[in-house]
Amino acid sequence: MNIGFLGLGQMGEPLAANLVKAGHHLTVWNRTASKAAPLVKQGAKLANDIADAARNEIVCTMLADDSALQHILDDGLLDALPRNGIHLSFSSISVAMAEKLKKLHHDRGQHLVSAPVFGRPEAAAAAKLWVVVAGHPPVVAKIRPLLDAVSGNQVVDIGPDPVQANITKISGNFLIASALEAMGEAVALVRRYGVDPVQFIDFLTSTLFAAPVYKNYGAKIARNEYEPVGFRAPLGLKDMRQTIAAGEAKTIPLPMASLLHTQMLTAIAHYGVDADWSVIAKLAGDHGGTK
Amino acid sequence: MNIGFLGLGQMGEPLAANLVKAGHHLTVWNRTASKAAPLVKQGAKLANDIADAARNEIVCTMLADDSALQHILDDGLLDALPRNGIHLSFSSISVAMAEKLKKLHHDRGQHLVSAPVFGRPEAAAAAKLWVVVAGHPPVVAKIRPLLDAVSGNQVVDIGPDPVQANITKISGNFLIASALEAMGEAVALVRRYGVDPVQFIDFLTSTLFAAPVYKNYGAKIARNEYEPVGFRAPLGLKDMRQTIAAGEAKTIPLPMASLLHTQMLTAIAHYGVDADWSVIAKLAGDHGGTK
Amino acid sequence: MNIGFLGLGQMGEPLAANLVKAGHHLTVWNRTASKAAPLVKQGAKLANDIADAARNEIVCTMLADDSALQHILDDGLLDALPRNGIHLSFSSISVAMAEKLKKLHHDRGQHLVSAPVFGRPEAAAAAKLWVVVAGHPPVVAKIRPLLDAVSGNQVVDIGPDPVQANITKISGNFLIASALEAMGEAVALVRRYGVDPVQFIDFLTSTLFAAPVYKNYGAKIARNEYEPVGFRAPLGLKDMRQTIAAGEAKTIPLPMASLLHTQMLTAIAHYGVDADWSVIAKLAGDHGGTK
Amino acid sequence: MNIGFLGLGQMGEPLAANLVKAGHHLTVWNRTASKAAPLVKQGAKLANDIADAARNEIVCTMLADDSALQHILDDGLLDALPRNGIHLSFSSISVAMAEKLKKLHHDRGQHLVSAPVFGRPEAAAAAKLWVVVAGHPPVVAKIRPLLDAVSGNQVVDIGPDPVQANITKISGNFLIASALEAMGEAVALVRRYGVDPVQFIDFLTSTLFAAPVYKNYGAKIARNEYEPVGFRAPLGLKDMRQTIAAGEAKTIPLPMASLLHTQMLTAIAHYGVDADWSVIAKLAGDHGGTK
Repeated sequence: MNIGFLGLGQMGEPLAANLVKAGHHLTVWNRTASKAAPLVKQGAKLANDIADAARNEIVCTMLADDSALQHILDDGLLDALPRNGIHLSFSSISVAMAEKLKKLHHDRGQHLVSAPVFGRPEAAAAAKLWVVVAGHPPVVAKIRPLLDAVSGNQVVDIGPDPVQANITKISGNFLIASALEAMGEAVALVRRYGVDPVQFIDFLTSTLFAAPVYKNYGAKIARNEYEPVGFRAPLGLKDMRQTIAAGEAKTIPLPMASLLHTQMLTAIAHYGVDADWSVIAKLAGDHGGTK
Repeated sequence: MNIGFLGLGQMGEPLAANLVKAGHHLTVWNRTASKAAPLVKQGAKLANDIADAARNEIVCTMLADDSALQHILDDGLLDALPRNGIHLSFSSISVAMAEKLKKLHHDRGQHLVSAPVFGRPEAAAAAKLWVVVAGHPPVVAKIRPLLDAVSGNQVVDIGPDPVQANITKISGNFLIASALEAMGEAVALVRRYGVDPVQFIDFLTSTLFAAPVYKNYGAKIARNEYEPVGFRAPLGLKDMRQTIAAGEAKTIPLPMASLLHTQMLTAIAHYGVDADWSVIAKLAGDHGGTK
Repeated sequence: MNIGFLGLGQMGEPLAANLVKAGHHLTVWNRTASKAAPLVKQGAKLANDIADAARNEIVCTMLADDSALQHILDDGLLDALPRNGIHLSFSSISVAMAEKLKKLHHDRGQHLVSAPVFGRPEAAAAAKLWVVVAGHPPVVAKIRPLLDAVSGNQVVDIGPDPVQANITKISGNFLIASALEAMGEAVALVRRYGVDPVQFIDFLTSTLFAAPVYKNYGAKIARNEYEPVGFRAPLGLKDMRQTIAAGEAKTIPLPMASLLHTQMLTAIAHYGVDADWSVIAKLAGDHGGTK
Repeated sequence: MNIGFLGLGQMGEPLAANLVKAGHHLTVWNRTASKAAPLVKQGAKLANDIADAARNEIVCTMLADDSALQHILDDGLLDALPRNGIHLSFSSISVAMAEKLKKLHHDRGQHLVSAPVFGRPEAAAAAKLWVVVAGHPPVVAKIRPLLDAVSGNQVVDIGPDPVQANITKISGNFLIASALEAMGEAVALVRRYGVDPVQFIDFLTSTLFAAPVYKNYGAKIARNEYEPVGFRAPLGLKDMRQTIAAGEAKTIPLPMASLLHTQMLTAIAHYGVDADWSVIAKLAGDHGGTK
């Protein structure tokens, strides 16, 4: 298939690379064009501008947030994508943005498929992401091979409305953040009573909490090691803001999401904007104890 | 071994039954004596009073809370347990109570081993509990066969100080409660956007959250089914209170534990004292939505 | 002075009426034009459209939120206001919107003065509002008579940057909301212990808390009476959202503002979008007590 | 009247001094006897022991917390106070302790009157405290002159059950703490936007929040000055714990009280056990801002 791909950051680049590997013809674009070099070496074509990439039957986007996506739309994507063209949106955007995007495409006779992904950059490189997809079924069927290529077939179809994939991604990230904060508080507590946090996490993650999120992050939290950075705290803050906004739009109070928003902001104030979002787990231990 | 066993409730009865099955001689006692009948049928001896049960080289207790244990202590256990006798405490008590208990036994030349358990009544009956044990190593070694008998060898030794087992249990229950609340909020959110909660939970619990706590409780939350009751909400409230108190004693603020305390109390106000503690997951959905 | 006035709602109408009373020539505009009738009777001129009202040396706006103001800007205000014209903004808008507005006017050689007001509709009618003003000093000096006319001279100048008036208004409303929630929890508590809430509030508001906010709202909360509606809960929710966003923009975690956002949302879910915002004080009592 | 007085700390000493000034015969006792010297100089008699002070028709107590009061009870007060004797309890104790105390006295044919006070040590010295009293009316009538002497007649009778005075005191302190936190967040916010916090607080406390709590504490918070210490943070933490416990006993969730408990604990972790409780207002500013 002839595919445009916009957004070659930490996640976008490996996604695009896996599509090239699967034999697709990619025209790639990135705000900082130099990042496209490795992909061009692998056979992708460098787009002259946004419209050049978007002038395909399928255009994929993987951007940092609502605002970055808005710029791409305004700077040519919407006008260049042909009628009946498909916008395959991988970005973690808000439900408000997804609703707006859906309408914009619909008004132009274009299609939107939302397919946000779960997994860190290493998983993207290994084509082992989990993908949640939502959209009009025949359109989803058409782009399905692309999703399989980036995920090793780990795709779940969550409904006919693109927004359903976005709310699933948002809720999933909220669940991960809640696990981070909970482990942080628990580890701070047991450590102060002389329990070895590594043994504590080992016990729980080989029994009740034997799941990747708890194992991977738990090991770091128990060792008080928060590097390398895979997902920056400001992105985690954005996720919590999106969770709260999605609840507010439906009048659903989400007290834990609000707490996590406060914690994420406190963590950024303490550890800086370049820390991994898991650093919220550091707060309970660093704050605790009388001086 | 000759063993006294006090407290034959939902958890104590199956624990005692498994010790009898393993060939130990049990003298059992319960505030409501009639509950001892099945055990007596299985070969246990009915104690005349607390002292009668406690007058053994090992006395096990499984009681609902600090106050129930305090009554047992005052009404004969402390005086009847011989010098060098071992108190094997299965109850989920506060760290303040555990500290006090440790001192009381120490002053009398007796030993305390804390061995709280994770698992619901069905797991207790099947001898599939997870046991966390802490105490003086040679004493723990002596009672170890008892722990293996009730757990199918799922025992983790967490340290030499009994209190370390209690704080581990408290922190573990806090982690479970945090998962309940987080799932409740996430499910309320995705449901309102038209996502099937069962599919949402299935996806997450076969990927990032593939762990017993999320699978078992998640299935109930997705189906909005909170029965049968395995662990009542007021016991969950007690756990959150114990978590906060344990943090306070070491000047560790635990914002998520405080939030869960509020949620557990709200759930009791809404759904009653006989609801399962997982009912906190019902709040977000029941509160949400404009009337 | 020749003044345009846009937005004749519950607060805008009495503001405009007091400017007419003070002898100013007003050209008024409202989305629903019929609301202008009483003002026209008092001598105001009805504008043909937004541009018609904005084509004055001073244009005042009093709109419900960011989005309503944005529409006014887009539909003619920005283009019609002359170079060196003054936009006197009474609305309670976000700091992000205020920053944006400042830049838009600056780019066109126009001036922005922010002058949000404290007080309910009755106070507006009686010209007894408190006004907080911020802007370039000579410009503020010029519009100062207008502020005196609507407030009975209760004006405080808070700084040279318009945004400073907006953050003051936002923080003031946050303080009021915190007092509402605190009184609600306290009253629910003492009532359950048999203390007469009216006597409780009387005592506190004649001693430590002898201030209008506590006296006026406290009397309602103690009597469990939340009507008439002076300020609707969704506007209170907007204020809490603006508070949190203002903090987030400067990386300041505001845990109490986050809590109040959750409570306001819960109150809307329980009591509806037409309830007065003080209804958050009803939650603690309505939720409390075992069934 | 012949009166015993136990507890001569920062608050107890000036209370006792004012009773002596009013012409009463005091027998005073303090754990550290040397603190009684100034009172003895003023005419009070030094008690030999607790029983010696309690062997009067009226015994007053002013102690730091439940545990200090419990020691006094156990060490002689209960046994020494005559049948029909009155225990006038000024201490800020929990409702659970007040309930227990009521029963203990009732069982001995003694009377309990609760009369906790509002005000800092300077107000106590000036006989300008506010006193909330509750108890059996004829008994309250009898001790009323004592309350007038310590308060300059600022006494409010809140009900016939002593516990009602305690819950009023607890709720009042909760309200003060909520005002501290709210002002702290608001001041941190406006300061970061360039508003002068002193001017901000001046404006609010001469209008909507013109009350002693906001004026006195607000001035300190705006100036970021938290000395001298009038009421230590651990006592504030105790108050929040008592508020939450009082709510829990009646199944009333108090989310703001829980938040304040977390904040008070965080403040102690940051600023130490000797800081004034108002230091919770410092957190938002100290945490805020990206490094």
